[in-house]
Amino acid sequence: MTEMPRNFSLADMDREALFHPATSIADHLKNGPLILSDAHGARIKDQTGRVLVDLGAGLWCVNVGYGRTEIAEAAAKAITDLSFYHLFGSSSNESAIRLADRVLSLLREKAGARHLSKVFFGTSGSDANDTNYKLVRYYNNLRGKPQKKKVISRLGGYHGTTLASASMTGIPAYHVAFDLPVEGVFHTSCPHYFRFGHEGESEEAFTERLINEIKDLIRREGAETIAAFIAEPVIGSGGVCLPPVGYFARLQPILAENDILFIADEVITGFGRLGSWFGTAHFDLKPDIVTLAKGLTSAYFPVSASVISEEIWAVLEAASPQYGPVMHGSTYAGHPVGAAIGLVNLDIIERERLVENAAELGPYMLARLTERVGDHPYVGNVRGTGLMLGVEFVADKKTKRAFAAKTGPQRVVAKNAIAEGVLVRGLPYIDVNAFSPPLSITRDEIDEGVERYARALELSTPAIRDLAAQ
Amino acid sequence: MTEMPRNFSLADMDREALFHPATSIADHLKNGPLILSDAHGARIKDQTGRVLVDLGAGLWCVNVGYGRTEIAEAAAKAITDLSFYHLFGSSSNESAIRLADRVLSLLREKAGARHLSKVFFGTSGSDANDTNYKLVRYYNNLRGKPQKKKVISRLGGYHGTTLASASMTGIPAYHVAFDLPVEGVFHTSCPHYFRFGHEGESEEAFTERLINEIKDLIRREGAETIAAFIAEPVIGSGGVCLPPVGYFARLQPILAENDILFIADEVITGFGRLGSWFGTAHFDLKPDIVTLAKGLTSAYFPVSASVISEEIWAVLEAASPQYGPVMHGSTYAGHPVGAAIGLVNLDIIERERLVENAAELGPYMLARLTERVGDHPYVGNVRGTGLMLGVEFVADKKTKRAFAAKTGPQRVVAKNAIAEGVLVRGLPYIDVNAFSPPLSITRDEIDEGVERYARALELSTPAIRDLAAQ
Repeated sequence: MTEMPRNFSLADMDREALFHPATSIADHLKNGPLILSDAHGARIKDQTGRVLVDLGAGLWCVNVGYGRTEIAEAAAKAITDLSFYHLFGSSSNESAIRLADRVLSLLREKAGARHLSKVFFGTSGSDANDTNYKLVRYYNNLRGKPQKKKVISRLGGYHGTTLASASMTGIPAYHVAFDLPVEGVFHTSCPHYFRFGHEGESEEAFTERLINEIKDLIRREGAETIAAFIAEPVIGSGGVCLPPVGYFARLQPILAENDILFIADEVITGFGRLGSWFGTAHFDLKPDIVTLAKGLTSAYFPVSASVISEEIWAVLEAASPQYGPVMHGSTYAGHPVGAAIGLVNLDIIERERLVENAAELGPYMLARLTERVGDHPYVGNVRGTGLMLGVEFVADKKTKRAFAAKTGPQRVVAKNAIAEGVLVRGLPYIDVNAFSPPLSITRDEIDEGVERYARALELSTPAIRDLAAQ
Repeated sequence: MTEMPRNFSLADMDREALFHPATSIADHLKNGPLILSDAHGARIKDQTGRVLVDLGAGLWCVNVGYGRTEIAEAAAKAITDLSFYHLFGSSSNESAIRLADRVLSLLREKAGARHLSKVFFGTSGSDANDTNYKLVRYYNNLRGKPQKKKVISRLGGYHGTTLASASMTGIPAYHVAFDLPVEGVFHTSCPHYFRFGHEGESEEAFTERLINEIKDLIRREGAETIAAFIAEPVIGSGGVCLPPVGYFARLQPILAENDILFIADEVITGFGRLGSWFGTAHFDLKPDIVTLAKGLTSAYFPVSASVISEEIWAVLEAASPQYGPVMHGSTYAGHPVGAAIGLVNLDIIERERLVENAAELGPYMLARLTERVGDHPYVGNVRGTGLMLGVEFVADKKTKRAFAAKTGPQRVVAKNAIAEGVLVRGLPYIDVNAFSPPLSITRDEIDEGVERYARALELSTPAIRDLAAQ
């Protein structure tokens, strides 16, 4: 098959053939890959046979845990029944219909979002947010507001990596050398009080300042030019940043007054991560569009969704005879196998009460983390809600001084954590280790994972001390 | 779930919950969905129990046919072993590594493309082309050519529906009300001799004219501003348009001279569709980037790939220490289940000699189509290579006059074809019915499918006659 010698290792083959996302090529060629295999529940094995507790659930996504036999069986059956068909030109399939209906029912019943009307499927969070970006333009063209196209996002926000979604992403590392963001996308301040609150500024005052900044931005650019505001209920990759007190309550009426659509990016927060079914419920939001992915299938199959309001749908429907087919969407949108997997995944979340488990074990994990690492000399803040938690590092505990750019203490700890048998993420925007275990995790596994993480942090202390001095 | 009656309630649920891609909302709400189920080989059942021969293989994608037990089993095993892990930050998994290696080996061995170096995975053709668009910019920034960013595509070309990929798509219907294309994307003439060749112009002269147009465009915009040229080896959704004689042989040196990257979009043509493993082999291309999707997994799982040249990789590698991680890519890139499915899919294509089958049955199907519908009063051209074929309609057979805009005789026939028991596509750019059956199709199934199509065309003749008069 290849000209490679028979004893050519899998790691070498990786270096020869794979271009990894979000990876340093230089580091990768030097250190090689971490090859994972054989995962069950919250545990996963690497190529050396070491068993790791995955406190990240992949990339915030394996909500029901790895290796569910029930999903394997459902996938095999779905493939045998209808291995593929698309949704183009009114084609459909039973699983896609039922999943759309189920998602709407959940949003209506668990988040009170009775105004949400239709589900547009895609294959990833990036894809769904790219759709949202395009759809907002389409909608405003259809209702005769062709000037109303700008989008406001936040610094620290993560919304994907396509041209449009990476533009909305507010983490500068994702823009470097890609000429991003595209014109018309603005990033307002990161709503992270611990890091960006001024000295002596109360949390309420911080919220006030951020809201005023948004008001000023709208005034400066002109509401008639601004189409949408996109936000994660809790910022994920940008640092596990909870909204400061009153933030969304203050924000939403301003958006409504200015006829600016509110897009809630629930790719991470959807399907139980916060101990509520949706961030929309958790923070009493009324989004015009909801972005869903990850937890929708627990990453067993790439499925995402843009859920749009009746108000948007009504405009599309009314204009349909004039505009014809909405020429947008992916071959794999509403894939019958992915939809069947999504349905079983939601069955598991409901039957095993995983949202309730996240609500119960989230505070427990936060307490355990605080207890074990809160007093560490370079840990400035331990926070989170539900099973979405973060440990933030500071170079000086008294002044909360941040580490110098690119020093990345969180990456040092994440690397040492693997040696200690636990997977956690080192984030790219703020010096934070993120924790987002499967919602099926047990108290014992949390204890074990936190203990291993604490040991890794301990081992990293001398290195962090050096970084703090830079 | 399959025990549920397939009745109107499912269709109503569809109308209530689903926002279909590439669908007229007005028509959909009026007529309801065509719900498909229970597919095997080249046959698929609709909700009325009618068995259809799928001469489209879904959307040009189910190369090995529907319902492969072997793939169902491989999926179940892969889910049980490692239901998910990502490729971020040097993480990896065996199936993704082996699939990348296998894709490279195939391109090198079957298409002589020894210069191709690395595989970047995604979840759809749209996603992969969005990656390509971004990567080309990244590459030119890294090598100190920040002005070199424009992209040339062709009218009729289809490259996806994300903001960037829809911009490269050269079918105006995909741009309407989406404010597309983005700045810096140009569309040169559609290389479709039958429709766009001038009266009395030879095919050679047509090629000459198109090549001169491209030369002029490069001269006018300045080669130093143009980064890439993207093309499907055979245009798919834009009308099954084969390149005119000498087109790529003339084009490629011009691109090379002007330091313009050549992106071969093989989403449809890859993995046997043309009776060759790749369009790159079929037309003797030397692309800098190859886009793959559909046939890579026969649509059993959303997997796409951007395969880049050693020349591009070398620039990225050299700049890596300075630029750090390439912050791009999807959670689901290199999904272990999708990669396992891809490997089994390629096993089937090789073991059952499906590329050879396409090479053998393609000319047979073309002959059968020509025989059955070539003399129809409104059929102007029957064409194709391998199992990628098209029937083009003309309002006047002598003058080759095209139908008036939006009349769409091909849609009338595609609709009547369902009633006759066969699925074919009515395309949006040119009045063409497209045929792209599973590569596993048999001679008998071709006979049956073509016969049913011919009957549908016969039944459509009065309606087409009315359209021709408009």
